[in-house]
Amino acid sequence: MKAKIKVMLKKSILDPQGKTVLHAIQDMNIGNFSDVRIGKYIEVSFNNSNLDSAKSEIDDICKKLLSNPVMEDYDFEIEEIN
Amino acid sequence: MKAKIKVMLKKSILDPQGKTVLHAIQDMNIGNFSDVRIGKYIEVSFNNSNLDSAKSEIDDICKKLLSNPVMEDYDFEIEEIN
Repeated sequence: MKAKIKVMLKKSILDPQGKTVLHAIQDMNIGNFSDVRIGKYIEVSFNNSNLDSAKSEIDDICKKLLSNPVMEDYDFEIEEIN
Repeated sequence: MKAKIKVMLKKSILDPQGKTVLHAIQDMNIGNFSDVRIGKYIEVSFNNSNLDSAKSEIDDICKKLLSNPVMEDYDFEIEEIN
């Protein structure tokens, strides 16, 4: 199976990296951009025949390893691949 | 509109950060994990009433600003939000 995980700063937390990229885009004079937020995207390949236990494993590693629960939110999808 | 952009190292390029996370997951003794790859996830909010021109704007900033085309591939979806 493959899990696709997104980890983003919580909405209430300022994202200076995103702000910097927003200013760079605005300096390029293309379009009308209002906000940029930058996070992490993680693809994990693993074997597990049971979808529920796969979800709980991925939830576990998101909480313990991939995100900082004080500042970040995570979200994932699991794809079954044969 | 909102663009959701993923930037990943090309498949042929080693991802040492991903390897480190893979070893950390394996040390936790949960499940049977075989690969981890880490990239960036970027959400961009902007105004554009035309979907085709929105796509070309986002493609432009991905090429010029958000990815390194020598080492990275990008991929995006655009959502219309009112």
